[in-house]
Amino acid sequence: MNSTYFTRRTIRKYESREVEENLLARILTAGTRASTTGNMQVYSVIVTRDDDMKKRLAPAHFNQPMVTEAPVVLTFCADFNRFNLWCRQRDAEPGYDNFLSFMTAAIDALIVAQTVCSAAEEEGLGICYLGTATYNADKIIEVLDLPTGVVPVATVTIGWPSVIPDQPDRLPLEAVVHHERYRDFTPQMIEDLYREKEARADSLQFIVENGKKTLAQVFTDVRYNKADNEFFSAKYLEVIRKQGFMNK
Amino acid sequence: MNSTYFTRRTIRKYESREVEENLLARILTAGTRASTTGNMQVYSVIVTRDDDMKKRLAPAHFNQPMVTEAPVVLTFCADFNRFNLWCRQRDAEPGYDNFLSFMTAAIDALIVAQTVCSAAEEEGLGICYLGTATYNADKIIEVLDLPTGVVPVATVTIGWPSVIPDQPDRLPLEAVVHHERYRDFTPQMIEDLYREKEARADSLQFIVENGKKTLAQVFTDVRYNKADNEFFSAKYLEVIRKQGFMNK
Repeated sequence: MNSTYFTRRTIRKYESREVEENLLARILTAGTRASTTGNMQVYSVIVTRDDDMKKRLAPAHFNQPMVTEAPVVLTFCADFNRFNLWCRQRDAEPGYDNFLSFMTAAIDALIVAQTVCSAAEEEGLGICYLGTATYNADKIIEVLDLPTGVVPVATVTIGWPSVIPDQPDRLPLEAVVHHERYRDFTPQMIEDLYREKEARADSLQFIVENGKKTLAQVFTDVRYNKADNEFFSAKYLEVIRKQGFMNK
Repeated sequence: MNSTYFTRRTIRKYESREVEENLLARILTAGTRASTTGNMQVYSVIVTRDDDMKKRLAPAHFNQPMVTEAPVVLTFCADFNRFNLWCRQRDAEPGYDNFLSFMTAAIDALIVAQTVCSAAEEEGLGICYLGTATYNADKIIEVLDLPTGVVPVATVTIGWPSVIPDQPDRLPLEAVVHHERYRDFTPQMIEDLYREKEARADSLQFIVENGKKTLAQVFTDVRYNKADNEFFSAKYLEVIRKQGFMNK
């Protein structure tokens, strides 16, 4: 397979040059050929190129500079709106106002998102996922005029790389792959799996910068802390409900 | 980019020959290099090769023959279990027992799943997503011994293609891509977008086979009907709660 899978890294700094329209269309078309539940294609992609629209989207992404600096911002959405319209126009009563349908559509959206990312990277483009799409979905809905039946699931910035960072570490494969049954981790296994990560210079620096005692505390107390997670959980569930996916 | 993106189709019939261990490891390793929230890698992949385990998994997938016929079945899970164990072993109190964390982990799992699928297809392997992973997650948890903090999100069968079906149709790109703002669909736009699909011989046959009047009715009344969706919605929400992701 092509080496991009193994050499890739998230790109957060882009050249100012555009991603040309034909190239973007080709990458998006690659995405549409990916698997989709029952060939329903219950997703949508909102392309943001306009500077003013990027500025309006930025606060929803906590003003991370990629949003205004990348030539292209893609918002991938779970989307039953178009499918529901089609059903109603064809004497068919859709039953997709429920959580399973949201998950089905979210899975569709993410399969397309990652296909688009792989295809883009193979063309030499750099990508960055913004987790904030689920945090502030309500604001994104407002800026992009998303109707009922549409919920943002992932945002990706795309552009030509200007700064290529070091490749980040990953845990050994056995941390994430289980054979036949899930074998739960003993304390010793956890020690072994995290040893290399914890010994890295960047990990140690991260602990100092955040005034913490362990790397794990940087995650639990600072980056992904309980209070924020609970706040954004309630918000996202409310968005899913408001967009019409929680009637059952 | 490589042509696989454009020529691929879902493969449901496989040769009996194995997917060798090294190749599978390489494909899974490609998956681990994909984007992951905060480099937490909050997902896991359960590899099923054993015939007896496939037989035990099959009912959860409504006995679709791919499960027992494919050499490899992969179950991709949202997984905070390993991360939580690490935190607790490092004097850090995890706050990931909430819906946002489930979504974060599910997104991680799906990004890996689709990277694995693209890498596999580039090697000539065929893949098939089984939506049933969310329908019967409770049964999958039981068969694969998944602990608290782990929820199946997608199942993929992988093998060497023996029957290569026609490539399925897709809607025109403008059905799924919006520029700058979501422009909602007029009845005429729906007519135009679905015209080609509805005129296809396989669509017409599908309507007759299911005794329906329109293609949309095959979806709403037969394939993805309201009663089933509501039943599996309640079940999946209960699984998410039981696996510890609904405390907030």
